[in-house]
Amino acid sequence: MAPTPLLLLLLLALTLVSAAVHPLDPLTAAEITSAINVIRASPLNSSASLAFHYVGLDEPPKPAVLAWPRSAPPRRAFVIARAGRATHELRVDLGNGAGRVLSDTVRHGSSFPTFTPDEQDAASVLPFQYPPFAASVARRGIPLSDVLCTTFSAGWFGRAERWAGRRVIVVQCFVAAGTANFYARPVEGVTAVVDLDAMEIVEYEDRVDPPVPKAEGTDYRAAAQRPPFGPENKPVTVVQSEGRGFEVDGHMIRWANWEFHLSFDPRAGSVISLASIKDSEEGTFRLVLYRGHVSELFVPYMDPSAEWYFKTFFDAGEFGFGLSTAPLEPFTDCPANAEFLDVDVSSGDGSPVRIPNAICLFERYAGDVAWRHTEFGFPGEMITEVRPEVSLVVRWAAVVGNYDYVIDWEFKTSGSIKIGVALSGILEVKGTYYAHADELSGDAHGSLVARNTLGVYHDHFFTFRLDLDVDGANNSFVKSRMKPVRAAGGPRRSYWTVEKETARTESVGQVELGSTTELMVVNPNKKTRIGNEVGYRIISLGGAATSLLDDDDYPQRRARYTKKQVWVTPYDEAEKWAAGLYADESRGDDNLAAWSQRNREIENRDIVLWYTVGIHHLPCQEDFPVMPLLTGGFELRPTNFFESNPLIRRRPNKPATRLHCSLH
Amino acid sequence: MAPTPLLLLLLLALTLVSAAVHPLDPLTAAEITSAINVIRASPLNSSASLAFHYVGLDEPPKPAVLAWPRSAPPRRAFVIARAGRATHELRVDLGNGAGRVLSDTVRHGSSFPTFTPDEQDAASVLPFQYPPFAASVARRGIPLSDVLCTTFSAGWFGRAERWAGRRVIVVQCFVAAGTANFYARPVEGVTAVVDLDAMEIVEYEDRVDPPVPKAEGTDYRAAAQRPPFGPENKPVTVVQSEGRGFEVDGHMIRWANWEFHLSFDPRAGSVISLASIKDSEEGTFRLVLYRGHVSELFVPYMDPSAEWYFKTFFDAGEFGFGLSTAPLEPFTDCPANAEFLDVDVSSGDGSPVRIPNAICLFERYAGDVAWRHTEFGFPGEMITEVRPEVSLVVRWAAVVGNYDYVIDWEFKTSGSIKIGVALSGILEVKGTYYAHADELSGDAHGSLVARNTLGVYHDHFFTFRLDLDVDGANNSFVKSRMKPVRAAGGPRRSYWTVEKETARTESVGQVELGSTTELMVVNPNKKTRIGNEVGYRIISLGGAATSLLDDDDYPQRRARYTKKQVWVTPYDEAEKWAAGLYADESRGDDNLAAWSQRNREIENRDIVLWYTVGIHHLPCQEDFPVMPLLTGGFELRPTNFFESNPLIRRRPNKPATRLHCSLH
Repeated sequence: MAPTPLLLLLLLALTLVSAAVHPLDPLTAAEITSAINVIRASPLNSSASLAFHYVGLDEPPKPAVLAWPRSAPPRRAFVIARAGRATHELRVDLGNGAGRVLSDTVRHGSSFPTFTPDEQDAASVLPFQYPPFAASVARRGIPLSDVLCTTFSAGWFGRAERWAGRRVIVVQCFVAAGTANFYARPVEGVTAVVDLDAMEIVEYEDRVDPPVPKAEGTDYRAAAQRPPFGPENKPVTVVQSEGRGFEVDGHMIRWANWEFHLSFDPRAGSVISLASIKDSEEGTFRLVLYRGHVSELFVPYMDPSAEWYFKTFFDAGEFGFGLSTAPLEPFTDCPANAEFLDVDVSSGDGSPVRIPNAICLFERYAGDVAWRHTEFGFPGEMITEVRPEVSLVVRWAAVVGNYDYVIDWEFKTSGSIKIGVALSGILEVKGTYYAHADELSGDAHGSLVARNTLGVYHDHFFTFRLDLDVDGANNSFVKSRMKPVRAAGGPRRSYWTVEKETARTESVGQVELGSTTELMVVNPNKKTRIGNEVGYRIISLGGAATSLLDDDDYPQRRARYTKKQVWVTPYDEAEKWAAGLYADESRGDDNLAAWSQRNREIENRDIVLWYTVGIHHLPCQEDFPVMPLLTGGFELRPTNFFESNPLIRRRPNKPATRLHCSLH
Repeated sequence: MAPTPLLLLLLLALTLVSAAVHPLDPLTAAEITSAINVIRASPLNSSASLAFHYVGLDEPPKPAVLAWPRSAPPRRAFVIARAGRATHELRVDLGNGAGRVLSDTVRHGSSFPTFTPDEQDAASVLPFQYPPFAASVARRGIPLSDVLCTTFSAGWFGRAERWAGRRVIVVQCFVAAGTANFYARPVEGVTAVVDLDAMEIVEYEDRVDPPVPKAEGTDYRAAAQRPPFGPENKPVTVVQSEGRGFEVDGHMIRWANWEFHLSFDPRAGSVISLASIKDSEEGTFRLVLYRGHVSELFVPYMDPSAEWYFKTFFDAGEFGFGLSTAPLEPFTDCPANAEFLDVDVSSGDGSPVRIPNAICLFERYAGDVAWRHTEFGFPGEMITEVRPEVSLVVRWAAVVGNYDYVIDWEFKTSGSIKIGVALSGILEVKGTYYAHADELSGDAHGSLVARNTLGVYHDHFFTFRLDLDVDGANNSFVKSRMKPVRAAGGPRRSYWTVEKETARTESVGQVELGSTTELMVVNPNKKTRIGNEVGYRIISLGGAATSLLDDDDYPQRRARYTKKQVWVTPYDEAEKWAAGLYADESRGDDNLAAWSQRNREIENRDIVLWYTVGIHHLPCQEDFPVMPLLTGGFELRPTNFFESNPLIRRRPNKPATRLHCSLH
């Protein structure tokens, strides 16, 4: 039968719709459903325990993405499912109506995927059906109804013989009555270990019972506060009299001289792709960052006791950093001029879940300048030229249990990209007998932040994967060292000069940050008119700690890459997660440091830069009950990328006047 | 005669007026005039060459300041004058109508004060009356009328025998035609040395003559730009619907939970004193910072050639950082909600000069949060509490020749004080034969930023003097080192703990920053209820470079303190200027490092913390013709100063709504 005109029109419409889908767009709720339906229709569905731990886009190969919109690669889902104590990596074709499972790779051993929220919820209530737990709580004189529990990853500590390849999680509990602060009142000393596949408690210990800290002073809700109230300030609002300056076109964002693709991944959170800046001289967009996102967040605590030694979290690989998204609150999390985007993720049973306001975009004006100069040198004349700094911020926040993390990607018209990490939320505290600092003896492994409350020492290592493609795929990594030189003769006796080293292999690309070396990613195949290699340099903006754990310690083997802030690897589509695809109970054999041991060539190739923002955290009383923002980050700054400062030719906005505003 | 009632009333009124003057208020224009008149009436006036290099407040002793307003110390001026090749330090009483010179200390040798703008102007035109200069310019084919000259401090390079205690300055020249960029087109190779007291050229050299860089691409004025124009963005304005939240009461500033005194010094620029934060629990203000300001800015260039070796500037001590103030431009340098303050300084002849809009104050809202938490732990309930971050910024900018520096003091309701330094303005460039990077050979001492234009390598070291009085005058300096520990037994093999060291003497207070040591100033006499010493810690926010010059090099001897970022000294009112009171041609015998060699006791005393923000600058093409802002700074963050996070009890503003605004 020949196609009817209507059918042809329908096919055309479908083609147009599919052309509008960018190859890097995250899965829609419909696509999630479609992928799950395909798997549900496969033999795998016969497993009673089938659960979906990761449902995301199967990222198309780079050439296919770069060929878009001339051609569109097939839409595919990548799914990690757990069934019958095995892990399945599934690739599912989503195209052309009837999808199909393209591949199903089965992983045994310790290839444990991120936890699903559902199984964590299920594990958290197990103690309430476990009689010894009721006894522990009763012995402490706490009503059982006041108690809630939550989960902590158990890590890997060479205890294969004990739990024999079982996927386990630790459950610990808190007195949640009388406060909104879930974590402030630990039932310290009680630890249950749950086999997640069997969903049963396999180990239980009630070891010590220091007092439960009081509820007083732990609540952070406005409604719970009593006088004397804290400082107040007059409201300050951002107003854009001509509206927003950015455009959201599907997942493409365009603003000033930038355009980029904004996506979301259940494991990584916000993902920036194809970030390109318009060269106003050339009139073309030049690629800077092919893809950038959080790859892992390693948070080890520094207390070796039975209840704490295992607290060495991999927040992306174990909990799903994207799955931990906290909806952003308009007017407080993001300013009045922000636009909010929702995202769709999958729950453990495969049904799509929408997270509202998961990402916000706004133009930031902090009152700062982009550049300025006042010239006093011309007689009888003072010249002043100033341009205010307005940037575009992409904000996303994740709350992994107690901690709140805010990740900002800030795009500047100068060509800089600033990546900011901010910490807030609640300390992970330990119940203690100590009520006063004078009582502390020996190593308490933390600071006393309230009576009977220790803020345990810990670190945060945010590792970003940055597939920089500076003006093209093939780049090199250059270290410029400032070298002191003894001056020969002359009044001046010393100065410094610069020694450049281009990293030929991965071992040279591993760098511990210091103030005397500048790090750059250059494109050796593109030069400015006066012959400098075009590039971007990497500047630390605070948070340059590295791990202090011993190399042979189990968590450090799993996060070996945290001993250097910078690693450079050749692009490999399989290398996305710094702590390995399966971080939970990982053995350290599939991570950034392990990959790099091959010492591959990285000069004039498609390379990936890994940057870790590290923070050692010694808690103090101000961090309690919710800590004020602590920030770190870094800047990718154009360095001989442009022929000159690209902002000089930016025409200033019309002379500003004071706005008259009212609340309608 | 008994006083009449009218006279009594008048006396009372005068007393009230004088009580309103804070002891730390800067000299008014009337007081400057009064001080100069007193000196003009003294025998010193007979010197034909009398010039005034510093006219400022003679800072009263701390006890007298702290006794205010119960009693007011006498108003006194401190004046540094130059007369007959000698330097005079004068203290002038300004009180009760007829002032008088209280003391006149004469300094000979190399006690050379900051240059006056007048004498620099005079020196800058000397070449035009010097025939060899006209010849040099003519030989280069440049019309003399296109040329302008300016001054550079000559430094001290052990050449006492050559210039024999004469106060000299270097004059170099630029082709200023065809551009507003004074510095972009050096007449490289021509150097004149001027004796400032004699005001005559004492040395002249015309050594090399590389091409003068072209004017094209050097102008930064909006009016001079031609298409294609750079990126544009929609306007963003800050609006405060209920008005500003801060109060300017004379020189006292009150905002939210902060109050402080804001002053200005011709050498230091903006000065913050008596910064105190209200403890809402106690209902009282607690002192944090008795006085803080820029003490010195050392900027050494890294080119040992004849025209460049001496370029090792001490911007505060040689040029007067405050005297270099650039008036801030409303709506661009500071946002629409800013308030501007003028300052009064003295010119070389003693007449007062008003600098308009020298300082601005504004409430900053960058769209960020102060703290947040989302709690997913309570079944069936999601709790979200977020407080936006609004802070108060005190901004001041100085332009020392080519460079623009923006100094921000940012006060946060959390108790933090962030000190930000930002660099913009114009690179000091060197004319060169090189037109392309491929031609570079040997050590060029800089980067090629445009044809025939080298951006010479250099550093910026901003040294702040911070007389912290955390909750009282007597403080200690504590270093908390994170020390790796091998775990005994147990699954965990390692962790870190904290070793605290209280600095007993100055040598222990000298610290090179690192990520494994936290630095704190504590008050060992005040503790929180749970027994922690109240304190503030110091956190680097970028810019942690130290000097790489050799210890025996002349500029490094003068700025020896730049090898460590942190120094702690016992309070001494004579120790204000890190490079010494007389920095120009100093010998390194009166500076922070020299004072500290006494290794005085600093434990539980009134101490001063010196913090240096250091930036190594390898110029790139984007820095030309005006560089985009480069920032560094540090944070003073309360650490066990409060019993808990002081922002928790801050009531949120009324729910925000979108404002409707118009331009009237």
